Amino acid sequence: MKIKKVKYIKTLQAALLLLLMSSLHAQEHPSLILTKQGVKEIRSQLGKVPLFDASLVETKAEVDAEIALGIIIPLPKGFSGGSAHERHKNNYQVLEKAGVLYQLLGDEKYGIYVRDMLLGYAKMYPTLPLHPEKISYARGKLFWQALNDANWLVYASQAYDCVYDFISPANRSIIEKDLFRPFADFISVGSPQFFNRVHNHSTWGNVAVGMIGIVLRDNQLIDRALYGLKEDGLAAGMKDNDGGFVKKEGQKAGFLANLDEPFSPDGYYTEGAYYQRYAMYPFLTFAQALQNNKPDLKIFDYKNKVLLKSVYALLNLTKTNGEFFPLNDAQKGMSYYSNELVSAVDIAYLYAGKDPSLLTIAKQQGRVQLNNSGMAVALGIKNNLEKPFVKKSIDLSDGSDGKQGGVAIIRSKMKEDELTLVLKYASQGLSHGHYDKLSFSFYNNSTDVLQDYGLSRFVNIEQKGGGNYLKENASWAKQTIAHNTVVQNETSHFGGNFETGSKFASEKYLYDVSNPKVQIISANENNAYPGTTIQRTMALIAQDGFEKPFLLDIIQLDSKTVNQFDLPFYYLGQLMSTNFAYETPNNLETLGKANGYQHLWKAGTAILTVDNAKVSWLNEGSFYTLTSITQPNDEFFFVRIGANDPNFNLRNDPGFIFRKKNVQKATFVSVLETHGNYSPVSEVALNSYSCIANLKIIYEDANYIGIQIKSISGVETVFILSTENNKSNQKHHLIIDSKTYEWTGPYYK
Amino acid sequence: MKIKKVKYIKTLQAALLLLLMSSLHAQEHPSLILTKQGVKEIRSQLGKVPLFDASLVETKAEVDAEIALGIIIPLPKGFSGGSAHERHKNNYQVLEKAGVLYQLLGDEKYGIYVRDMLLGYAKMYPTLPLHPEKISYARGKLFWQALNDANWLVYASQAYDCVYDFISPANRSIIEKDLFRPFADFISVGSPQFFNRVHNHSTWGNVAVGMIGIVLRDNQLIDRALYGLKEDGLAAGMKDNDGGFVKKEGQKAGFLANLDEPFSPDGYYTEGAYYQRYAMYPFLTFAQALQNNKPDLKIFDYKNKVLLKSVYALLNLTKTNGEFFPLNDAQKGMSYYSNELVSAVDIAYLYAGKDPSLLTIAKQQGRVQLNNSGMAVALGIKNNLEKPFVKKSIDLSDGSDGKQGGVAIIRSKMKEDELTLVLKYASQGLSHGHYDKLSFSFYNNSTDVLQDYGLSRFVNIEQKGGGNYLKENASWAKQTIAHNTVVQNETSHFGGNFETGSKFASEKYLYDVSNPKVQIISANENNAYPGTTIQRTMALIAQDGFEKPFLLDIIQLDSKTVNQFDLPFYYLGQLMSTNFAYETPNNLETLGKANGYQHLWKAGTAILTVDNAKVSWLNEGSFYTLTSITQPNDEFFFVRIGANDPNFNLRNDPGFIFRKKNVQKATFVSVLETHGNYSPVSEVALNSYSCIANLKIIYEDANYIGIQIKSISGVETVFILSTENNKSNQKHHLIIDSKTYEWTGPYYK
Repeated sequence: MKIKKVKYIKTLQAALLLLLMSSLHAQEHPSLILTKQGVKEIRSQLGKVPLFDASLVETKAEVDAEIALGIIIPLPKGFSGGSAHERHKNNYQVLEKAGVLYQLLGDEKYGIYVRDMLLGYAKMYPTLPLHPEKISYARGKLFWQALNDANWLVYASQAYDCVYDFISPANRSIIEKDLFRPFADFISVGSPQFFNRVHNHSTWGNVAVGMIGIVLRDNQLIDRALYGLKEDGLAAGMKDNDGGFVKKEGQKAGFLANLDEPFSPDGYYTEGAYYQRYAMYPFLTFAQALQNNKPDLKIFDYKNKVLLKSVYALLNLTKTNGEFFPLNDAQKGMSYYSNELVSAVDIAYLYAGKDPSLLTIAKQQGRVQLNNSGMAVALGIKNNLEKPFVKKSIDLSDGSDGKQGGVAIIRSKMKEDELTLVLKYASQGLSHGHYDKLSFSFYNNSTDVLQDYGLSRFVNIEQKGGGNYLKENASWAKQTIAHNTVVQNETSHFGGNFETGSKFASEKYLYDVSNPKVQIISANENNAYPGTTIQRTMALIAQDGFEKPFLLDIIQLDSKTVNQFDLPFYYLGQLMSTNFAYETPNNLETLGKANGYQHLWKAGTAILTVDNAKVSWLNEGSFYTLTSITQPNDEFFFVRIGANDPNFNLRNDPGFIFRKKNVQKATFVSVLETHGNYSPVSEVALNSYSCIANLKIIYEDANYIGIQIKSISGVETVFILSTENNKSNQKHHLIIDSKTYEWTGPYYK
Repeated sequence: MKIKKVKYIKTLQAALLLLLMSSLHAQEHPSLILTKQGVKEIRSQLGKVPLFDASLVETKAEVDAEIALGIIIPLPKGFSGGSAHERHKNNYQVLEKAGVLYQLLGDEKYGIYVRDMLLGYAKMYPTLPLHPEKISYARGKLFWQALNDANWLVYASQAYDCVYDFISPANRSIIEKDLFRPFADFISVGSPQFFNRVHNHSTWGNVAVGMIGIVLRDNQLIDRALYGLKEDGLAAGMKDNDGGFVKKEGQKAGFLANLDEPFSPDGYYTEGAYYQRYAMYPFLTFAQALQNNKPDLKIFDYKNKVLLKSVYALLNLTKTNGEFFPLNDAQKGMSYYSNELVSAVDIAYLYAGKDPSLLTIAKQQGRVQLNNSGMAVALGIKNNLEKPFVKKSIDLSDGSDGKQGGVAIIRSKMKEDELTLVLKYASQGLSHGHYDKLSFSFYNNSTDVLQDYGLSRFVNIEQKGGGNYLKENASWAKQTIAHNTVVQNETSHFGGNFETGSKFASEKYLYDVSNPKVQIISANENNAYPGTTIQRTMALIAQDGFEKPFLLDIIQLDSKTVNQFDLPFYYLGQLMSTNFAYETPNNLETLGKANGYQHLWKAGTAILTVDNAKVSWLNEGSFYTLTSITQPNDEFFFVRIGANDPNFNLRNDPGFIFRKKNVQKATFVSVLETHGNYSPVSEVALNSYSCIANLKIIYEDANYIGIQIKSISGVETVFILSTENNKSNQKHHLIIDSKTYEWTGPYYK
């Protein structure tokens, strides 16, 4: 990679910045995250605040073990999961912790450790070429990608700040000249395609440069961090190795641009919760540093407090057990127990008015940051201030202006049990986006009922493609058929084309959770398949005669051409029964040839002749039944993921698909019931059958659709949606089967 | 079914019994499980013993809700999981509880409830024909099988005993004449094929008759229960609908015969833990009743205290979390949290010298029986008497004489982590046995590493074949290929023939756990394939240079003919890597046509050319690597369960198979390493690679096999087994590669 020389043009903006810089608050060390005054306060509380003390003991044990092991700085080599990568990663984490321990405990050994480690890196760094692994669009020197180098600098800056006064001026000079300055330059001016983006990568890059800039009192670096490189020589339309845009026409860069653009006004980060979690640490840590050093910037108030809102958005984007909904590229299992969220919750607590509900999350996390925000939280818990963190239904807008669709989370809680619907009608989500407009996932407490597959990658597991994205991520996980949404003619939304997908977002039609017994989200997607309009409406309805709320799903498709439409449901667990016959083949073939279909085994097939097709299954002690309205000659497939997977990278999870062929208009209607339970210890099966006697479309025209649900116990539910007029004060009048329905607003129930 | 008239011949034995009967201890009610004196003691403790009180509150809430619901006695219909079946089942459970509450709380409403329920049954019972479902070899009247009728009577007898004094003599006369007496006769003299077996079914039948016999002071019934029907008219060789023997030549019957025969001297029950658990309730409850009423019988001392030993055997047959190893037909997930084990632990505590380690189990169970044994346990816990229940390595013999092979459990515990090997070298295990000689399963704490599939049945889930055994139980779950053991020529052990299998057991060759770092089980099987001898030796070895103990597996096969040998390993989780190339097919075909092979999809194939084949996988946060010694042209298959499964009854779990073709002698050697960990929250993969550089057979002849394991860090382990001489004092001398090995006993390490 060629290191580009960039000339700095003194713009008006920069001049303004320099003015601001002059007010750089603290001129002492530490001042970045820990402050001199803060350390004094923390020291006075040591031994008195259980959660803080416990976190301190844990950290001390970890760092002491590392000190006993000795400093190891291997030559850079290999991918994540490999020993050199993991050692450098471990080093920066321990560096930061040792720095903090030096401040809090005043023990020289931690100062010595940080100093010697930094001197070690300072000795090696000037000798380093680009990292030998060549697949990244922005290679690092310590790591295979500049991203990890930036991670290193974010942590090492904090360590250096803590131990600054301990290190002799001569050694400081070595460390700054041979390590920090060239490091910061390399990941910024030396890697503009990495640094000057709107992306979680560049956020890390910006913050790394900004953090060391503050420690070094270098306004130029801080300027670079906040506003990006003034000139980067990058061509608009350039893409990275994941297929994401490096530069879009007219795009701003730097930390503030990374706050402006990917965050919606609601605090939703367009890449999805998994990457939002990843970016939280640099975003909030740098914000804390800016607050300590440039309080005039009022960074926590920026964009109507979007940073703090983003913490709440993330906490809401979780299952009952705190695991994030796996929207877009997301490794399942990641949760608010991650270090990034410990830090985020602590910082949000301190800077967002000490919301006592955050203490409940912190208490679950069981540890705090070793700084003033962590102490504030630990004190709050010590003083029993916590209140429940209640996750309510929430509609999170996407897009910097909040107008690029969104993600609706609808929750229904009965006693201890919670059902959660997540409907995604967002924008593409940058390079980590999936082609899954109007897809949904559904959860029974923390159990995936109808799952989102997540990504195809084993993060940091070297055996699996160096821990990087696997090719099945593009060929399967990103494809539309991998999601619980409609596929037209076996092709993905936007033809699976990233540029096209990035131009559009779905549009909200209706989000109404004012009645806790009928919570609705409805959205339109008119661009995924040109010439075809899709409206999906999902309602979580609590109804007498049903043990738990059921999920009503209505999809109306209208196309200018004749198409095949597939609607998959990826369940988990064991099939219990169907109310129709199906065939299972002697040999398994794939369902199709491309666009993800090549990864599906066709495990069973049926031509449906029933009015209502029922599929029941058992998963983790609960029964589920999906009842669907079907038309004669609708096709049905049982599928299993895992075909054309030569390295067994995919999970072999099951699903089933409803198919309508040769249609211009099509309507899919189904109801998912969550019912009963089974324990292998008691061996008792309770309420193991569906309560639905009949599901029927009783009305459908250009303006309305009416659904009738008859329960076995005789309860009749009618749900009517006004499909073209969503005004809340609109009066409607409709006669169905000689019965008159009159109501105000977009739906009748 | 014809009710057979049986004449009672007064034998010497019966005369003796009548003598014993005269000593029938208590002549008052209650006397069966609760006693008048016992009730007095319990009442004096109410409100003072937390665990007992909590169990009482829970039971009261349940019974009160049932009383509020009212008595429902439906006409018998349908299988388990169906509403009539479940209602009758619920009724007998509530009956027993209501009886106990009547005694403990003295509230008439419980007496009224029991009385009225029994009168209701007494009204219906005389009108009942055989149950309409016809598939059982021994149909009941209330339920589809007499087994469930017997369940009913075991519980109802206890209820009647508790409420006996409350019910008027006139009503007692109705209940006894129209219900209990004909009921007891029907399941005994009316169902000899059910009553006169050695089987968990007949145990229930015997106990039901014995319990009501004690309540009614009817020595004839008690005689029948203890010793079976003197004449039953059954033909030797007759089988039930599961294919199990009803009668073998010369077989004794009755409760004592059911204690004599299926229990080994170590307390292992030949059907396996799952059915042992099921039988525990009648065995121990009736024992308690006999102890209360016929203490001279000293039933708890019978066969060297086998009943009490059986409780310990069961507690040892569990994973770390208390779930039973799924030997033979066994539904996974069943555990010592079941009601049967609550009762078993309580009774064992009271009658086996108040072993404080049982209190630890009882505390985990979190509830006790509402009788004197439960009170004893609750008092022990209240007084903090409990000591840890330590599960050690244990070798449980099978067979009434302990000479029908056995089940070895080898455990290795490091800090909080426990690895467990279960090697089965037992007898057939009656009708619930599987054809799986020398099969094993392996556990990392409670995670199945190499699994035993268990049964193919969804117990009490009506949608799945009425909750009964599914046909895949015979075609898959019982077959040899479904287990981690050797298959010759794609046929199951004993040709899958139950009669043949029932004649043989494997023979223990060596069980030695004296050195906690080298724990060994070795057994021979010479009858599964006539003309072929199999010796399998498994050792759990803790070795420097390895994070955790590894499992060494040596199988030596010697045949008179040329054969194909398959050795499957059923892992769970995600494949990480192999050190050899393999092909994956475009379409999936089955691995074979019959004997379980028709249920396996062939997901990948390889012809091996490496000396050591390595397969690594990740499951629930741990890595595993199996390293196998292979010879040129050995074949390898990745398989997945689920072919020819038209109702999706099977779990689609993965496995891999090593195949050696056209060989007379064959040796399979492999080492399973449990290593490292991965968390999706920290995203750190630790120690994710195998430590083995090379695995080699360094010596093999008719008397010895020597294995060398070289670790990557340079540690060399040599293990030598004397394969024909297992004497512990035998001296051995062997030269391998010019190095002399001298040792005493069957193995060198």
